[in-house]
Amino acid sequence: MTWLDVAPDSPFGVANLPYGVFSVGDAAPRVGVRIGDRVLDLATALNDRVFAAPALNPFMAQGPAAWASTRDRITELLVDERHRGVVEPALTPLADARLHLPFEVGDYVDFYASEHHASNVGRMFRPNSDPLTPNWKHLPIGYHGRSGTILPSGTPITRPNGQRKAPDDAAPTFGPSRRLDIEAEVGFVVGAGSPLGSPVPVGEFAQHVFGVCLVNDWSSRDLQAWEYVPLGPFLGKSFGTSVSPWIVPLAALEHARVAPPPRDPEPLPYLADDGDWGLDLAIEVRLNGHLVSRPPFREMYWTPAQMLAHMTVNGASTRTGDLYASGTVSGPEPDQRGSLIELSWGGKEPFALPDGTTRGFLEDGDEVAISATAPGPNGARIGFGEVTGRIEPAAG
Amino acid sequence: MTWLDVAPDSPFGVANLPYGVFSVGDAAPRVGVRIGDRVLDLATALNDRVFAAPALNPFMAQGPAAWASTRDRITELLVDERHRGVVEPALTPLADARLHLPFEVGDYVDFYASEHHASNVGRMFRPNSDPLTPNWKHLPIGYHGRSGTILPSGTPITRPNGQRKAPDDAAPTFGPSRRLDIEAEVGFVVGAGSPLGSPVPVGEFAQHVFGVCLVNDWSSRDLQAWEYVPLGPFLGKSFGTSVSPWIVPLAALEHARVAPPPRDPEPLPYLADDGDWGLDLAIEVRLNGHLVSRPPFREMYWTPAQMLAHMTVNGASTRTGDLYASGTVSGPEPDQRGSLIELSWGGKEPFALPDGTTRGFLEDGDEVAISATAPGPNGARIGFGEVTGRIEPAAG
Repeated sequence: MTWLDVAPDSPFGVANLPYGVFSVGDAAPRVGVRIGDRVLDLATALNDRVFAAPALNPFMAQGPAAWASTRDRITELLVDERHRGVVEPALTPLADARLHLPFEVGDYVDFYASEHHASNVGRMFRPNSDPLTPNWKHLPIGYHGRSGTILPSGTPITRPNGQRKAPDDAAPTFGPSRRLDIEAEVGFVVGAGSPLGSPVPVGEFAQHVFGVCLVNDWSSRDLQAWEYVPLGPFLGKSFGTSVSPWIVPLAALEHARVAPPPRDPEPLPYLADDGDWGLDLAIEVRLNGHLVSRPPFREMYWTPAQMLAHMTVNGASTRTGDLYASGTVSGPEPDQRGSLIELSWGGKEPFALPDGTTRGFLEDGDEVAISATAPGPNGARIGFGEVTGRIEPAAG
Repeated sequence: MTWLDVAPDSPFGVANLPYGVFSVGDAAPRVGVRIGDRVLDLATALNDRVFAAPALNPFMAQGPAAWASTRDRITELLVDERHRGVVEPALTPLADARLHLPFEVGDYVDFYASEHHASNVGRMFRPNSDPLTPNWKHLPIGYHGRSGTILPSGTPITRPNGQRKAPDDAAPTFGPSRRLDIEAEVGFVVGAGSPLGSPVPVGEFAQHVFGVCLVNDWSSRDLQAWEYVPLGPFLGKSFGTSVSPWIVPLAALEHARVAPPPRDPEPLPYLADDGDWGLDLAIEVRLNGHLVSRPPFREMYWTPAQMLAHMTVNGASTRTGDLYASGTVSGPEPDQRGSLIELSWGGKEPFALPDGTTRGFLEDGDEVAISATAPGPNGARIGFGEVTGRIEPAAG
């Protein structure tokens, strides 16, 4: 318990302590930790210039021992009231803070690790084949995305223009995407990199990954469908990918760890589980304020530890600030699907909103908010906050 | 003509002046320009600290007017002997210089712009379909690669481990790639970025792209074949991509500009040609010193100006240091193919080397060097130097 005025059931209590980058007025952005509805300025409270940076990268690069000792020091400040004199001058109400992209992104990789999502999309995109490709249960499929268009939560998303061609069209046409979608995902931020030629085993996940955020991988389904064979998604994704402002450290997720679902067939030895890195995150997707889906992250077939092991098994290096995302999180139930293309089954079964309108895909002006919580100690919840974005009309 | 002792037919005369990053002994890396077989230290010669950086990025970010005036100033130093006193102390023999990665890489995109290459690979990878996918002649197909594993020329390439599954195998196995390959490509370096929501028209290519280098996109064909459906290449490429040390500025390639091949069907208006940005680069691929291919870049179906226009038409931003590569350059003739999978037709028709050995794919110890020249003024050639790499055995 903290001596600060934070509700005992706050998802941002001392069991959480997520990191972000904030600024107040015209001051330079710096690193803070969220406690309740306030931000603790770490450069001031800990008297450490590594937190005076406009990104978490310098701190993350210090590695897991520094992450642990910093978390201990912050916890002590917040639970022992004798530190009131140090803490109070370093607190800013969240309402007065502007939140920034919390880290400088190295490489961005997007996985495809939900069996339910991959099966649903496979049925729609490749109706004459098995929904899962033959490789799907042998390796966590992933691809590189555009790191330069990773955007802080709240950045408006302009509907992209591009080529699209319906199966019946004789030739592609150019114009605004007609099938603009979301993908509710969970992102993993590499804090301590790994050199070229040094694969990261499944068991060393927590020595490299600093924390977890939420990702909305905005997707243009019509651009994607026309371009993606044979080299994968490109412009259908690269116009923007939004991330939540708070990076929840792995240490805050000890109570969220669960065994992943059983895998059949058994994966190759380099992908064998080592520690339970399934995570029981309860995600909620809201469209214009209305809850439209509750994707359960614990259903994911591949864990983030397996994703990192796979991504590096060929000797590829990782860097501080690399982001990899899970792919769309979808559960087995219809109201657990993490994309509109699944919720509306390719637009053929539009779903109703309480205002009487229906949606197949996103309309201009639509606002999407993805949030999540996870189990914490003693029945508390660990909050991720939310990643939001509003659709602006396409450029003329 | 320069007053320096440089052969009149040197591919590194004053008509070229490519930029790189070099160091001597333990001194910090800094920006230099190659003249003949020497490097001119620009921070010293021009008395400008922007060149004291270990990457071209700060200079490139200054934009096309600065690129032009800097080239004028360097040219003047080298053609007017009155500057001998300034120039000579700033020269280092190339043999004494260590060359580094010339720029800090933002995003890396790899295109697939050779019709001959795409047709050859299509025939091998998808024997029961048309060699070109239906989208191929409508848009320059591309995908994002791993920027953290862009390597300076000469970095040893360790044979990657990974999953591979031959069509007849019941299940994938794990181990060293058996079909390790090269891809001879040309890379384009973005100097002046473009903001989110601002597509770069074909006609504005030269306002954004700073220069051109050579790329070897090392490829593991067995890893790639098993993983790439449906989201594209990942571990089959991400273990390493080598780039040449010298960035040839666009201004040095005025005499290399040619009309691209005729396009049929006519591309959509945003991809219409505006200025001839086909480039007459003559590439040579050497394996253990033996010339094995001469890919002609002028045969490429899509120009780099079209690639940039496509990459940004959805509103995606670009940043200083972004690299995009052409994809394998292959010409219509068998000895113009830019990858071993084409030269050996999937390994089925191994080709002979003068030492009596044959190759389907790369063997441990093989060394690959890709070089290129382009037409310059008055019959001179513009040299790109080379990108090299030697295969090390897989990790045990």
